[in-house]
Formats: sequence, structure tokens, C-alpha cells
Amino acid sequence: MTKKTRLSLQTDAKNATITPMSTLSSQAYKGTRDYYPADKRVQNYIFDVWRRVVMRYGYEEIGAPMLEPLEVYTAKSGQELAHEQTYTFTDRGDRSVAIRPEMTPSVSRMIAARRQELPYPARWFSIANFMRYERPQRGREREFWQLNADIFGAEGALAEAEIITLGAEILKEFGAKDDMYVIKVNNRKLINFMMAQYLGLDAVQAQLMIRLFDRKDKISNEDFRDQAIDIFGDQAAPSGLAKISALLSAKSMGELPAEIRESGAVKEVQELFTLLERAGIKNAIFDITLMRGFDYYTGTVFEFFDMHPENKRALYGGGRYDGLVGLFGAEPISAVGFAPGYTMTELFLEAHDLMPKLSSTTEVYVVVLGEALKGAMEFAGKLREEGVNVELDITGRKLDKQLKTAIKKEVPFMVFVGEEELKTEVYPFKDTASSEEQKLSFERIVTSVKDRRRGRKDELDDFFE
Amino acid sequence: MTKKTRLSLQTDAKNATITPMSTLSSQAYKGTRDYYPADKRVQNYIFDVWRRVVMRYGYEEIGAPMLEPLEVYTAKSGQELAHEQTYTFTDRGDRSVAIRPEMTPSVSRMIAARRQELPYPARWFSIANFMRYERPQRGREREFWQLNADIFGAEGALAEAEIITLGAEILKEFGAKDDMYVIKVNNRKLINFMMAQYLGLDAVQAQLMIRLFDRKDKISNEDFRDQAIDIFGDQAAPSGLAKISALLSAKSMGELPAEIRESGAVKEVQELFTLLERAGIKNAIFDITLMRGFDYYTGTVFEFFDMHPENKRALYGGGRYDGLVGLFGAEPISAVGFAPGYTMTELFLEAHDLMPKLSSTTEVYVVVLGEALKGAMEFAGKLREEGVNVELDITGRKLDKQLKTAIKKEVPFMVFVGEEELKTEVYPFKDTASSEEQKLSFERIVTSVKDRRRGRKDELDDFFE
Repeated sequence: MTKKTRLSLQTDAKNATITPMSTLSSQAYKGTRDYYPADKRVQNYIFDVWRRVVMRYGYEEIGAPMLEPLEVYTAKSGQELAHEQTYTFTDRGDRSVAIRPEMTPSVSRMIAARRQELPYPARWFSIANFMRYERPQRGREREFWQLNADIFGAEGALAEAEIITLGAEILKEFGAKDDMYVIKVNNRKLINFMMAQYLGLDAVQAQLMIRLFDRKDKISNEDFRDQAIDIFGDQAAPSGLAKISALLSAKSMGELPAEIRESGAVKEVQELFTLLERAGIKNAIFDITLMRGFDYYTGTVFEFFDMHPENKRALYGGGRYDGLVGLFGAEPISAVGFAPGYTMTELFLEAHDLMPKLSSTTEVYVVVLGEALKGAMEFAGKLREEGVNVELDITGRKLDKQLKTAIKKEVPFMVFVGEEELKTEVYPFKDTASSEEQKLSFERIVTSVKDRRRGRKDELDDFFE
Repeated sequence: MTKKTRLSLQTDAKNATITPMSTLSSQAYKGTRDYYPADKRVQNYIFDVWRRVVMRYGYEEIGAPMLEPLEVYTAKSGQELAHEQTYTFTDRGDRSVAIRPEMTPSVSRMIAARRQELPYPARWFSIANFMRYERPQRGREREFWQLNADIFGAEGALAEAEIITLGAEILKEFGAKDDMYVIKVNNRKLINFMMAQYLGLDAVQAQLMIRLFDRKDKISNEDFRDQAIDIFGDQAAPSGLAKISALLSAKSMGELPAEIRESGAVKEVQELFTLLERAGIKNAIFDITLMRGFDYYTGTVFEFFDMHPENKRALYGGGRYDGLVGLFGAEPISAVGFAPGYTMTELFLEAHDLMPKLSSTTEVYVVVLGEALKGAMEFAGKLREEGVNVELDITGRKLDKQLKTAIKKEVPFMVFVGEEELKTEVYPFKDTASSEEQKLSFERIVTSVKDRRRGRKDELDDFFE
């Protein structure tokens, strides 16, 4: 990449050729998605639920840049993510940068930068977009959106229970029932004990084994076995495989092999389950095979898992990562967080038939009759002063074309404004969905629109109670 | 850049070294900004006002990817932006891509992709982040946020007047008065006539002259003169400079040289001014030197300009760009839009002392006394069920540390919950700002918080009426 930082007339002059008018593709970049108004309504519905729930627990919104120095990810995110899935390039100042593939390193960096001044525990959330090189497939896009909620500076299981409760509250707010999903829980200390003491693996082998467990549900039993043998080496393989098999057959913590059961890490898990029960969470299960891909986890890890027969997949997960802030030159600080993804949430809501019908944010479409545009403009202005969202048809088209536009845009109400209506101050007011029409005064129109707004709110409140 | 698309255990094995624990910088990437809770509150305040106003005019939200193929910008955005200011790289599939430096080409592409099916006029808006290589300075950041609002499929001055009105309504909603800014208006057809017929320039010269006019306020009169002579060439320069000087001395459309005044484009400008007057906009002025940088403008261009003596600068601008959708292989469609930037808006509000005091979105901080955590947790849960945003202190720290945290976080209320309070069901309730304390029942606490919420809303409503 050549450096062109100096902007001058001379540079411009050389480039000032007229670009030929060739046809450009109207497709979005591979693996990314355009959000048309109807798509964006769905996205905003999901974002609003996320925001409402985490704010109810005292989380405050933050934001971070879309670019970070590459080493922010190579340090701790995990090899696959940092080296193979990240959009990386060299900027004009010869810095290696990456489009953020996740949020956790950025928020950790922000905490480190103001480590001394911040009030703790810091409860932060963000809703942001990320990019990863993925083979595009259902539920996987190269650009994707996530909520991230994290609590910094709170040690122990209480913080972990709060974050898991948040995840459950979000699904409840969407209308989900307990039997629609399970929450799998494990602990990295337990995993580390298991890898080193129980299976006798060194650090490199352990990393590979963790990644293999992580992929267990995506590969065949034979592939799992073969790859496990590769990691153990031929000599250690027979006893290693037997030990793995003893692990996998344990259906609860009590059935774990005795030497694991007696390790200190099990106590942490038990404490967390006690708190989750107290918080009324009934669908959390212990799963010794749950790893979570990121290298930065240090304690509890968890994953919300969709139980719909046609959508059996991880919804989202999180865990404790006490070491990450310390990488940025600050004193280490304890941290727990999780990150629900937008696409997974959308698929979950669709699978369980939980997606509400959403109409346009525009409430009234003003259809202009005859030559009444000037008066209709004033009428629309007055409605707006009352806080109503109004679209005015300024095209001068025939009535039926204006009607069709309002219907296609899914605007809930239409008002017809002509010279006659402006004189009598009574306006035909039509419900777009039912086609019912009434003749209403300006005041009654405002009331009808506001009643609908309130009604929708009550409806939602009732629905989720 | 090497291609690594195949993910396999083998590849992982080679990379599975433990990264050494070196210290990473906690600084944000050059020219970008971290938004801590207090910063994000300000950003959300501005975003909310933008969203509220454009929705009131029937604009619907959309979203587009952060990456686009590079040629989307080289075609029409202007040489400087596409070639010198864009973050460009080659992806792993050998595509030249760019992080979006602006929104207009993306929305035009989206319109083109569904040209036939969409209802018109389409009124769309988005709030998104962009990147440009800029020398970081006050008001210029490499990553920046913008509102974009556009109307597609509406010809004529009505659409232009609506977009300009939106810009004025946004400033009004922020509390701005008419004398705090002016709206400069010009027209690209008029500019083209001026360049070709009046000044006698060819296409390349005209492009250079437009860019020179664009920079007029940033360079000295001598530099302007010298660069103009370069463009004209020595022979044509004397008469050219005289003509430019006649242009610049015109203080209104009526004072323009006769041959320009009689061109058709002037009528368009006059029609627009008539509509703006009718819409109650008093601070629009005609400015023959206003160019706007983008190559895609085809008619009206405008710019909101801050009049504060210490912040004299362009706030934001827009215009008509009828040719852009057609570049994506669809039938051309008329388009007008504008794009207020976040940083400029922030500077405007600060300069005019219009920034409101914003406290945390968390409404109640529950301070836990003694061993009452379990009861306090239930208390916090009940408050949340009433829709109150509650942060619970789970640290078990001393009272004064919990208090300090609540104050530092700017949470408006504190409630103290201990065994005694849970028994009597009366809780000390403290206003963080005034330090006033009352003893209230649960119900009274809910009412107090909701009164404040309503009060703030009324206050804002009163303020902006």
C-alpha cells in the first residue's frame, strides 16, 4: 500500500480524470447484509429488548472503535479467531490493524486505560457490529451484531450468577419459556485440572484438547476419537481415551471421576448453582464438555443452548476472564461477561414463533386530495407538533397510488386531506390493516394514534408478565 | 496476505504456541475514540434527538454493511475521498474493499437492488459509523458517526425543502435559535453553467475549480488567486479572475452577472427559497461559492453553518444526487439527502451551551447494609419488575465505599437496604444530587422514580416548546 497522506491540489490534478460510467453490482459485500426498513424494525426490536433488560440491572452503555491494533487479539482471543478469522490489514501509517471480531478485548482495554478512576463494580454494555471471515451459512455472517454485557471488579460467583440471570431475563423478555433452552455451565479451572492432572496433558496438548472438545458436537465420534489419539500420542492414547470416556458418561457433578470431584474448582461450580437456584433459574445444567473457544477465560464458562428440535445450537455464551485487563499494563481486575448475537436471537425467536408483528415507526400517512398540498403540509406539521410520526405524500399522484404506498410501507393509519376536509375540519381516518374508516376531528386523530401507541405498550407488558 | 480459509486441527497445531505476556497499549487506535458511560450518554442524547425528529417526518431506519467493494466509492464520491481518505484493503478472496467513508453510495446501492419492489417516495435514515484517513484535529476524527436521511423518488424542490427543513428541525429540537446558524444554498446546475459557460472551463478544469472553491475559506486569498491562475492557464487567467471577482461580490441572486441570472438553474433555486420561506425557515441564504465536495451531486446543494464566533464552521450538508442509483445497474431515480455528523453537533451544542446535564440511565443504586444481601437482592428484583433500572451493590463493602460508587456513577437515587429496613418495610431513599433523604415504602419509591422520569420528559418538552 502506498502512502498518500499529504493532500494537495497537485495530487488532485493528476488524478482528476472522469471515471467511466460502468455498472456496479448492487449486491452487498459477501457475508454481509443490508437491513431494509422491515429488517431493521426486527433488529431494533431485538436491540430494544436487550437494552431494556441490561439497563434494568444497572448496566451502562459504552462504545469502542471498530478498529483495534491486531495484537489486541493475537494476545488472548484464541489462535483461530486472531489468525484465520480476523479482517486484518496494514494502515497508511504501517500499523497492523484489525476490524474488531469481538468486543471483550476492547472493553478490557478501556477498563485498563482508566483503571484507577473508574467506579467499581463497573457494569457496562454495548451493542455493536463485528467482522469475521466465516464460510457464510445459516446463522453465520461475516458482519454480525452482538450485545456485550460485562461486570468488572466483582469477584466470586455472585457476579457470574448475575450475568447468567441477565441472559435468562433477556430470553424471558422475548417471551421464551424455560423449556425452550438450557444453560450449560462449566469452569476453566476444572477444565485445566482435568487436562493437566487427570488426563496428564502438557500446555500445548491441553490447548488442542480444549479445541477438540469445543468441536465435539460438530464432528463424528470417529473423528473425535482419531483426533484425540493424535493429541495423546500412541502410547498414552489407550488410558487417555478411557479417562475421557469416564468423563463423558458422567451426567452430573456427582458422577465425575473422584479425583476431579475432589478438586477445589468443583466448589466454585457448586456455589454458582446454589445462587442460580436462588435466582429462580431452573434450566442450568453442568456440562463437563463445554469449553468456549476464547483463550482468555479463567473460571466459569456458560452457554445458552436452543432446545428447539430444528434449531439445536448454541445461542450465546460467556464467562469469567480475570486476566485480560492486566494485559494492557494495568493491575489485573476480575471480569465476567457474555455476548448474545443478533442472528442467533433472530433464529431462536423465529423457531419458537416468538417474533411479534412489527409495523412501520411512521404512524400516519397523509394522503393528499386534489390541490390541497399546501393545507395538507400544515396539517401534517400540526400532527408532528403533537409528537405523531407523519409521512406526507408530496408527489401529487392519484389517490390509489398514494394508498398503495401507505399499505406497502405498513403505516398503521391513513388520513385523507383535501380542500373540503380542511374546510369542515373532519378527516377520513383509515386503519390500514382492517380498512375500517372513520371521520375524525384533528384532536380525535391525535387521541386515536396515541391510544394505539399506549395499547401496544400495554399489550407488550401483559404479554411478558 | 496469505490465504488461510481451510480450518483444521493440523493448522491449529502449528500455531498453538503460547503468546508471551507482553504489555499492550491501552490507547484507542489513532483518530478513534472510546465512549465511556458519560460520553455514551451524550452520544445517545444526540442520536435520540436525530431519530425522534426524522421519525416524526416518516423516515424509516435502515442499515448497511461497514464494508463495501472499493469501486462503490471510486465511481462517484470524489477523488480525494475515494483514493486518499478511504481505509482500503484486499480481502482473503482478493476483493478490493473499503470501510465505508460515507453512507450515500450504500443506500443508493440498496435502492438499486430493490428498485422495482420498493414503495416511493422512500424516506430512509440511518445512524452509523464511518472511517476516513484524516489528520486528527478538533472536529475531525478518523472514525466518526453520522445521521443520514434521504428521500428517493421525489423530484423537484419540495423534497429538497423537506430535507432542509429536517435539518432545521433537528437543531430546533436541540434548543438552537435561528440566529445560531445559517443555511447556505447553491445548485450544481448553476455551478456547472458557471464553470462551463460563464468561466469557459473544460471538464477537468471545472472539477479543479470546484475543489478550489470548496477550500476557499481554508486558504488565503493569495493562494486562492494563485491556484485559480494555475487552473485557467496564463492566457485565460486575467479575464477569468475578473469574472470570479464579479461572482464573489454578488451578495444575492439579484446581483449575479446577468448571463448567470438568466440561466434556467436560477429558477430552481428561487423555487426552493419560496418553499423554505413557506416552511418558516428564515435563515437560508444563497451562496454562489458553496460547492460541497462529492462528485455525485446534480442539483441543489446546501450546508448548515455554525455562526458562533468561536466555532465558525460547516455543521453538515447535503443535496440532490439523481445519478447515483443508476450507477448500480438500475433505472436512475431522484434522490436528496443530508448527513449531520456527531462530532460537529457535539461542538455546536457545547459552543452554544445547549448540552443538557445527563445522569446515568440507572435510576436506583441499592446500598446493602450488613448481611442483608439476600433480602436486598429480592428487593432489587421487585423494583425491576416495576420497570425501574436498579443497580445492586454485591460487593459486601463498607457503606461509604458503596455510597462513593453510586455518586461517581451519577445514579440519581440510592436506597439503603438492611435487615431492619426489610422488617419495617420502610427504606432510607436518598437523592444523590441534593443529598436529601426520606424514609419511604416500596410503593413510594417506585412513584418517586417514575415521577422523576416523567418530570424529565416534561422538562424536555417544555424546554423545546
